[in-house]
Amino acid sequence: MVWLTAERKVLRLADRRCAAEGEMTEPTQINNQTGRPATDERIRLAHGGGGVLMNRLIVEHLLPVLDNEFLRSLGDGAVLPPAEGNPVLTIDAFVVQPLEFPGGDIGRLAVCGTVNDLAMMGARPVALALAMVLEEGLPIAVLDRVTASISSAAQEAEVCVVTGDTKVIDPAGRGSPGMFVTTAGLGICPEGLRLGPERISPGDRVLINGPIAEHGLAVMSAREGLQFETQLSSDAAPLAGLVQRLLRCGPAVKFLRDPTRGGLAGVLADIAEQTGLTVEIQEPAIPISRATRHAAEMLGLDPLNVANEGKFVAVVAAEAAEEALAICRGHPYGREAAIIGTVTSARPAVVELLTAAGGRRIVQRPYGEELPRIC
Amino acid sequence: MVWLTAERKVLRLADRRCAAEGEMTEPTQINNQTGRPATDERIRLAHGGGGVLMNRLIVEHLLPVLDNEFLRSLGDGAVLPPAEGNPVLTIDAFVVQPLEFPGGDIGRLAVCGTVNDLAMMGARPVALALAMVLEEGLPIAVLDRVTASISSAAQEAEVCVVTGDTKVIDPAGRGSPGMFVTTAGLGICPEGLRLGPERISPGDRVLINGPIAEHGLAVMSAREGLQFETQLSSDAAPLAGLVQRLLRCGPAVKFLRDPTRGGLAGVLADIAEQTGLTVEIQEPAIPISRATRHAAEMLGLDPLNVANEGKFVAVVAAEAAEEALAICRGHPYGREAAIIGTVTSARPAVVELLTAAGGRRIVQRPYGEELPRIC
Repeated sequence: MVWLTAERKVLRLADRRCAAEGEMTEPTQINNQTGRPATDERIRLAHGGGGVLMNRLIVEHLLPVLDNEFLRSLGDGAVLPPAEGNPVLTIDAFVVQPLEFPGGDIGRLAVCGTVNDLAMMGARPVALALAMVLEEGLPIAVLDRVTASISSAAQEAEVCVVTGDTKVIDPAGRGSPGMFVTTAGLGICPEGLRLGPERISPGDRVLINGPIAEHGLAVMSAREGLQFETQLSSDAAPLAGLVQRLLRCGPAVKFLRDPTRGGLAGVLADIAEQTGLTVEIQEPAIPISRATRHAAEMLGLDPLNVANEGKFVAVVAAEAAEEALAICRGHPYGREAAIIGTVTSARPAVVELLTAAGGRRIVQRPYGEELPRIC
Repeated sequence: MVWLTAERKVLRLADRRCAAEGEMTEPTQINNQTGRPATDERIRLAHGGGGVLMNRLIVEHLLPVLDNEFLRSLGDGAVLPPAEGNPVLTIDAFVVQPLEFPGGDIGRLAVCGTVNDLAMMGARPVALALAMVLEEGLPIAVLDRVTASISSAAQEAEVCVVTGDTKVIDPAGRGSPGMFVTTAGLGICPEGLRLGPERISPGDRVLINGPIAEHGLAVMSAREGLQFETQLSSDAAPLAGLVQRLLRCGPAVKFLRDPTRGGLAGVLADIAEQTGLTVEIQEPAIPISRATRHAAEMLGLDPLNVANEGKFVAVVAAEAAEEALAICRGHPYGREAAIIGTVTSARPAVVELLTAAGGRRIVQRPYGEELPRIC
């Protein structure tokens, strides 16, 4: 019982301190990234308690950054305008470590991951819901940066965070206090739109919108403290805008999948398995940066197995392949798009890599993931 | 690099062990609660890796229990049938400890919490999305029980888990390995349905569907290992069915809110604050069990501030109050419903408790929550 009373005392003291801080006439420092007063405050259990401190966290730190008419009502959910078409629902939990890495952070990752799941199903993102589990001791400055990142990624994807939930847990014994972010996405796809492996047939072309393996390697090198001559950067990007343009090619676009966990190899293995057809890939056609290739060699990883967070694999009818490629190359997230292979009826159904030297090798589905907690 | 190789080895060994287990002709023991073979297996990091082990976890443990046509496709999301009305989106993260408590577990809690958020907005639940973050070392038997509980609560609420995501994190140093569950809910509410504090006016009646404070006290006593003469049990229940019936009263139902964190006092304070009206509550009319009152006294808590997970507060026009009460009492989750008070124009706007002895006291908004991690 004592600690209950103790907690109440802490709460009251904390409240007085916050009140005192609020009385300062001018904030002394502004955080350049968030444009908000710098603070060395940290998350406390009471920030998740549903009381005054939690209200302050929401009103002062989350609402101003994520603001929109739906979120502002602070209801238990958001009532959205009616929309024609099929609703599409998706959810992803993100546990990446470190929380911030070159090219992104857990917030950008969460928004992009969820928007991309919707995009791969041909859906236009309509709304995001955001749940954050914060560990006690997390610097509020980190939370502010992640929230700002969520906001900017959502803006880029033309979608809002319409509802949310925040919980605080006692800190783990596993290093600096962290956070977990879960995002659910609601999208709308036009009735009658069909994308799926069952639509793939021999002769179809396989397209990717840019260089592979950048997210996984950026996170791994940040976590391991590895330095490479060129800075690796995550490719995390919301792809819904590009995909909506691509879908103007009509039914020639047959299948879309984002090569996240399991990498490009995982998606190609899925295609071969689910269609019973062979996927023939021209190795030299696969876009990959020198820096990525170098880092993968250093780490002993096959870039085909490494996670991406801003890439999609599209299977497109042969006659529309050049048009699809041109659409991709005309978009910031598709500048380095390439047609990397062809679906054939060769048996047995495998993923076959044709090397520059004229050799052939079978690409296996990754057994497990290369490293945990990259998303 | 060494630990990477080591992890691969663990994976292969684990895989062999699982294969060997699969070869047994008869499972030796059946878990009574889940109807599945008992296992002493535990979650490993590789269960979250996107590889073979993860696939097995999903196909053997999650799919059979949660099965439905949407989930079965194992896509990145679920394409749902078009529906008329306003889509309603909600999300909740659950971090309750212990994971299992009298009357429920984190799974039942997650489904009920999300279904009830939708119900409070007048929405019929259409689909749930489920994200689970598992700590390495979590017994798979616990996961099986939680999953079974999610399934049965969802069935009761006439809704399916249509899509999901699973991640595994390294265990915290904070006791036995746990899990966090985040559920997002999609509902549909009829166009034109308006529920909200702005519709409340003097003379309206305040109704609650049953006895208060049971969830919070059940979790707290389970966590603290407290024994009471009568076993306390969480009230966690999906309320959408009851609320849909209640809404047949039409526009006489003006406001609905579930008194979770912050309890009944929190919701009544919200009403007074948001309407500028006084809420007069007859203390003897508030349903509360003897066991709950006793436990709250022992713990030094005000039951008005303690969380509920199967209750709603409804504000109803006076002329429809008896009809609303009768509807509630005719439903399993409303048998002990009561009209507990009246909205008045008395100034200043407060929540006033009229005691059995004829006294009056002002009910304050709870400052913080009584104890963390009750949901």
